[in-house]
Amino acid sequence: MAGTVFFSVSMSLDGYIAPESPDELMGQQWMELQAWMFPLQFTRENLKLGAGGEEGRDNDISRATFERVGANVMGKRMFEAGEHVWPEDAPFHTPVFVVTHEQRDPWERRGGTTVHFIDDGIESALGQARAAAGDRDVRIAGGAETIVQYLNAGLVDEFHVALAPVLFGTGVRLFERVDASRVALEQVHSEVSPRTTHLSYAVHQR
Amino acid sequence: MAGTVFFSVSMSLDGYIAPESPDELMGQQWMELQAWMFPLQFTRENLKLGAGGEEGRDNDISRATFERVGANVMGKRMFEAGEHVWPEDAPFHTPVFVVTHEQRDPWERRGGTTVHFIDDGIESALGQARAAAGDRDVRIAGGAETIVQYLNAGLVDEFHVALAPVLFGTGVRLFERVDASRVALEQVHSEVSPRTTHLSYAVHQR
Repeated sequence: MAGTVFFSVSMSLDGYIAPESPDELMGQQWMELQAWMFPLQFTRENLKLGAGGEEGRDNDISRATFERVGANVMGKRMFEAGEHVWPEDAPFHTPVFVVTHEQRDPWERRGGTTVHFIDDGIESALGQARAAAGDRDVRIAGGAETIVQYLNAGLVDEFHVALAPVLFGTGVRLFERVDASRVALEQVHSEVSPRTTHLSYAVHQR
Repeated sequence: MAGTVFFSVSMSLDGYIAPESPDELMGQQWMELQAWMFPLQFTRENLKLGAGGEEGRDNDISRATFERVGANVMGKRMFEAGEHVWPEDAPFHTPVFVVTHEQRDPWERRGGTTVHFIDDGIESALGQARAAAGDRDVRIAGGAETIVQYLNAGLVDEFHVALAPVLFGTGVRLFERVDASRVALEQVHSEVSPRTTHLSYAVHQR
């Protein structure tokens, strides 16, 4: 379905998708959360880490997730955590719409990533992302708070979780603020890989 | 491996294994959490709901989980929630060791469930359960707090999670008090069924 709105995250078994502070992004548990992606051929290619890397289902899933996206939406905090860390050739290669209260001119990066700052709400950001995505899909890139805002508003069609065999204990929980009285899930696909479990759900309103 | 210590729970995608209050045990989300078990032939047989029911992998997994258990360990709150609800023929059919501060004589039920009240700590309860289990395994039956006490103490060898396509939003989180700095997981088996995803992990110390 063209124009699908989705998110895709790596989540710990206890429900976390990020450490409490961006300073901990290189910590051991965070690395374990993402461990299934690092060795992939697609990851190396996308982050310009050089040739080589593993092929196979994990690689196919990563590549397909990237290629279906025509526009990304993200929260202000995710943008600010990435702004000074992303390479000049930022890893999105699509228009990016940042939900913010700030007025700011578009920020253009090499390789097709242009960041637009949207100060009139999540629906406006999504509408502009849809228009920019054309017949491709819109990814709610993160973070957790932004993903759940869209989920609670009934604006997410489906999502993918790569469930990692790691416990965080503290950090940012994906579903912390979910309105479970409104969001019903349908398990549409699950797939096991040696390093993670891929889970896909369709979202329905209760 | 005989004498393995394990737990096995149904968990929501946001990490909950029970509602906040036992009064909500018949609520919609709780039913959705357990939905994969209700139609099974083994569930019907074990709860004496009558003949019939579904066979297949979910049924085989439920039966195997039950049959490997030679003794159960549970917390005081799980026991108290069950004490007046379990049928005369309680659904354990093994010795049960309740971790409590109360001194109380053993409570004998029909069908092989004898409940022992252990007032000198989790290691004592586990030791007595091991002895009672013989060459079968010990299940830490619950609740979350008791499971995590054993996990943090390095006394759990492996566990199974049936991850349900439902969000709770509130309730009792399985891993709320886990000491993630000490508990490392190894994903040993995952298996998809139409109603849930079965995940098995071995536990190691960090």
